[in-house]
Amino acid sequence: MSKEKWLDFLLICCFWIASTSGVVSINGANASQAKPAKVMAVVDHGMIKDEPADSTAKIIKLLIKAKKEGVKKIVFEKGRYDFYPDRAQEHYLYVSNNDEGLKRVIFPIIDLDGLVIDGQGANFVFHGGVNPFLVQDSSHITLKNLSIDFQRTFHSEATILGVGSGYMDLHIPQAFPYDIKSGTLKFLPQADDVADSSSTQRLRARKEMDQHREYIYKRMLEFDVDKRETAYMVKDLNIGTSVRAEKISGTRNVRIFHPVLTGTVGNTMVFQPKYRNFPGFIVTESSDVIFDNVTIHHAGGMGIIAENSHNITVKNSHVTPSHNRMVSTTADATHFVNCTGKIELINNVFENQKDDATNIHGIYAMVDNIIDQKTLEIRLQHPQQWGFRLAAKGDVLELVQGPSMKTYGTNQVTQIERISKEITRITFDDIIDKRLSIGDSVARVRDYPEVLIKGNIIRRNRARGMLLNCRGKTIVENNTFHAPGAALMFQGDANYWFEQGGVTDLVIRNNVFDNSNFGVWGKAIIAVDAGISAEHKESARYNKNILIENNTFNVYDNGLLLDLFSVDGLIFRNNKINKTNAYPERKVKQAFFRIKFSDDINIEDSNEFTGF
Amino acid sequence: MSKEKWLDFLLICCFWIASTSGVVSINGANASQAKPAKVMAVVDHGMIKDEPADSTAKIIKLLIKAKKEGVKKIVFEKGRYDFYPDRAQEHYLYVSNNDEGLKRVIFPIIDLDGLVIDGQGANFVFHGGVNPFLVQDSSHITLKNLSIDFQRTFHSEATILGVGSGYMDLHIPQAFPYDIKSGTLKFLPQADDVADSSSTQRLRARKEMDQHREYIYKRMLEFDVDKRETAYMVKDLNIGTSVRAEKISGTRNVRIFHPVLTGTVGNTMVFQPKYRNFPGFIVTESSDVIFDNVTIHHAGGMGIIAENSHNITVKNSHVTPSHNRMVSTTADATHFVNCTGKIELINNVFENQKDDATNIHGIYAMVDNIIDQKTLEIRLQHPQQWGFRLAAKGDVLELVQGPSMKTYGTNQVTQIERISKEITRITFDDIIDKRLSIGDSVARVRDYPEVLIKGNIIRRNRARGMLLNCRGKTIVENNTFHAPGAALMFQGDANYWFEQGGVTDLVIRNNVFDNSNFGVWGKAIIAVDAGISAEHKESARYNKNILIENNTFNVYDNGLLLDLFSVDGLIFRNNKINKTNAYPERKVKQAFFRIKFSDDINIEDSNEFTGF
Repeated sequence: MSKEKWLDFLLICCFWIASTSGVVSINGANASQAKPAKVMAVVDHGMIKDEPADSTAKIIKLLIKAKKEGVKKIVFEKGRYDFYPDRAQEHYLYVSNNDEGLKRVIFPIIDLDGLVIDGQGANFVFHGGVNPFLVQDSSHITLKNLSIDFQRTFHSEATILGVGSGYMDLHIPQAFPYDIKSGTLKFLPQADDVADSSSTQRLRARKEMDQHREYIYKRMLEFDVDKRETAYMVKDLNIGTSVRAEKISGTRNVRIFHPVLTGTVGNTMVFQPKYRNFPGFIVTESSDVIFDNVTIHHAGGMGIIAENSHNITVKNSHVTPSHNRMVSTTADATHFVNCTGKIELINNVFENQKDDATNIHGIYAMVDNIIDQKTLEIRLQHPQQWGFRLAAKGDVLELVQGPSMKTYGTNQVTQIERISKEITRITFDDIIDKRLSIGDSVARVRDYPEVLIKGNIIRRNRARGMLLNCRGKTIVENNTFHAPGAALMFQGDANYWFEQGGVTDLVIRNNVFDNSNFGVWGKAIIAVDAGISAEHKESARYNKNILIENNTFNVYDNGLLLDLFSVDGLIFRNNKINKTNAYPERKVKQAFFRIKFSDDINIEDSNEFTGF
Repeated sequence: MSKEKWLDFLLICCFWIASTSGVVSINGANASQAKPAKVMAVVDHGMIKDEPADSTAKIIKLLIKAKKEGVKKIVFEKGRYDFYPDRAQEHYLYVSNNDEGLKRVIFPIIDLDGLVIDGQGANFVFHGGVNPFLVQDSSHITLKNLSIDFQRTFHSEATILGVGSGYMDLHIPQAFPYDIKSGTLKFLPQADDVADSSSTQRLRARKEMDQHREYIYKRMLEFDVDKRETAYMVKDLNIGTSVRAEKISGTRNVRIFHPVLTGTVGNTMVFQPKYRNFPGFIVTESSDVIFDNVTIHHAGGMGIIAENSHNITVKNSHVTPSHNRMVSTTADATHFVNCTGKIELINNVFENQKDDATNIHGIYAMVDNIIDQKTLEIRLQHPQQWGFRLAAKGDVLELVQGPSMKTYGTNQVTQIERISKEITRITFDDIIDKRLSIGDSVARVRDYPEVLIKGNIIRRNRARGMLLNCRGKTIVENNTFHAPGAALMFQGDANYWFEQGGVTDLVIRNNVFDNSNFGVWGKAIIAVDAGISAEHKESARYNKNILIENNTFNVYDNGLLLDLFSVDGLIFRNNKINKTNAYPERKVKQAFFRIKFSDDINIEDSNEFTGF
């Protein structure tokens, strides 16, 4: 037992002695009575709603106290609470599919079992480069009836005033501070996002420069201002991190110069932040975590990222922009990596986020070095996977041939040593399969989660609807999808993203696919794919056992409904496909179905096509 | 005792039992004999000189073994050894006056007492974003007879081919990989700085993009190609981080566009890296550290940065560029923060670094919040001071009025709690002086070091020669200074840099000041200054008791020799001042001496002026 844990233990003992002897009363009630779940009202601890001051020190102190005292519920009053970076709790975190870094955490929920945070309608407003919530090494955590937002978003928005050859004129609203420095456009923090009162203007300026890193952009994307979705068939415009700019007449009007610039006057240009440093909720190494009626107006990264966790539910929740902004989170609404148990997304709205509504997958690491007949060094390949805990002692890993993605064996970990955030040394129980070679991959064989995606609305985001790359039973029902790319995608590869997938039992039923695929992020409404190299396509079947029934597909042309690759067993039946006029038809007409290197694909006659 | 320390202790016990019972022999000798200092030759542990492979894993393993076995000396063979980031030991470090971050340390010398690393002429070549040496919580450490260098420097250099209105044409040598992306100039890592052999080209490209962050520039500076020093009176050119660029005819020739561009054809333009992430040697919380015959060819930050350490000597060492590069380290050659005991710089050459040869100072933190009559919250102000340990329990702090920099009291720390990297809460022994108000500063009252600067050559760097802001006895003798700014500067402020200074006993004798101040970084050869606000100038005297004698000043015009502000007591005697033709005379002629708000300044008649 560490010194800290001893102290905790002693404190708990003292508290127990004191409480059972009637010395201490909790919330006015004598603790020796029926012992109801301990509840802490934040108002009793100095956190006053609608007070503009920084509440960070108070919430951190309160969470430490709650942990020590075994409090099971923390209750806010409905209202606004503000949080700044200066007094946040600092943790260096590797957050899968986001960016690693020293995070400034406002709500550190660490090593806790059993806590409900009930916002009762509280709106948490964050300032500057902070990470709102971290749930780590905890279990039975419920977050409900609260919303999070940022005073200044990590992305920036502008209205297109005009477009010419190699330039574009923009109006940048006051909500997105900027400056033209060294002839290039820089986005800046809001002045009031610097909390301290004592510093001089000069220091403030320097701090702003430091914080400026957080507002660096890397590309732009055009949104249709009427439909509030990505404009028809637009692409990301790679303008770099410092586009050339000059002031033009009119308040906050700017001309930017770049060869790739195109767009429609009146639409909104969104500047994508270069990094994903500030996801809204980080859940790691935890279990039984519930989000209920949580609204995420903004995050500088994903809305909710859960990794190496067990049983996660997100229900009755919203990812949606505030203050008339076009964009909510700057990356996926939700994302699940190497999770187990159950993953449930029920009755949520995921809209206007800058990437998919969810992505559920595992992680492959590449074999980098063979030390001896039982020992390997593996390397996490994607920089946003670096530092991820791929396995622990006792876990079973599958050995996967890189080019074919075929699993040719499994082996149990008896010893594991982290060399660096990239490299881990693993010793196995059995002699390693002779077929293994450098460049092959390993992934954890898990209690692959049962996935239930039910009653959600997914719309107006960038990219795809959902990426469901999970080997557990996966049910997708009663959802409405209106995504500019593929509404649903099933994928996996061990050569670029290193995301483990391969469905084995997938049901897609009673959904409305409402004019998806009006953008460039996908070739079909439902796409099943796998990163398998040419010479193995004939034999490899990465995805299995798919049923697609009783769905409605509203489509604006006869482009691909299904694009299938490396599938063994699919039934497509009793679906209604209706022609609409929602978008201009694409010029290149395609069949509704494209099937490559797949077996046992049954497109049944029960499907109804109307209006073609 | 922590679990780790218990394990160490048990291991030591086992080793002791084994060694005294004759079971284990060390370096072939039986340990129960005369017990000579234990020496480890790296060649006996698989580190082969001149082998291109990554030796990182080997040196880390060797250092762990050396610590466990109580090895007192590690010996290399003369030759080249290469180190890459992938398997480095990772530590999140706040490094004063450099940039904080997750450092990838190659030589972690941590919690060690008594170790000599004798390179015997070894040349350590580092690749990518790594930190060569970390000396932390250690004592009696000697590093000698070794050199460090980087395969690809963090700065980049180019030759000026031509200059026009708003543009400049450059030739960029192969040693500085670059690309033109989105119409702007980006510097890149060298392909061979990615060590792993297994990754695909695609991954390599992504890793390079990630590493690209390390080569981001922020400004340029022109160096005279013949004199190999900053060109006469040039300024830093703030071109931003992504200057617009296009390819022009000729291999590796580029035209860049910016209004500030000026320069002389044939000279070298140096692109300054935006960050200081990779200092050469970080010494922190350590004592009795000696650098002897150490050569620093390059570092992405300072050469040697020592903080909160006691007794540091740098002798017979060189900071100097290799491979015909113009620049050595990208920041100060050496730098000492809140150190104690002795600081000795003896018989060194510090040349071509991108900032001062040394800066010795303390740190002020600002009073941010008064909690009660014994408790304050203080804030580290400069982002490159964030995370610095300003004090510990038992330390005495001085209380300093911000605008006057007058110390009006001291108080002893009884309790100290770090809230964040910016904020620390301090409880004092006594009731805090009533005069204290928010915005005042505190600094540690230390055993201020005795400073001996003797026999060094300082030349061809950017900015000043040395900044000596130490209250201990400071002797500067027998050195040669040829710096483009002030050769010597004595300063301190609590409003911008927050560096504690104020000499109290300073002797400057027998030095040659050889045509310094031919650039823009200083108004005199020797400048004594203090950041005191206007209303306190009459009364405040920050610097005291200065003797300047028997020096030779070679000067190219009759600009300021001494610029004195807030000094109490100075004698300037027996100095020789010779006129040279080294540079064009400046147009604005000044007196040799400027004295403001000072007392007891004695410029004696014994000084000889020749050639004016």
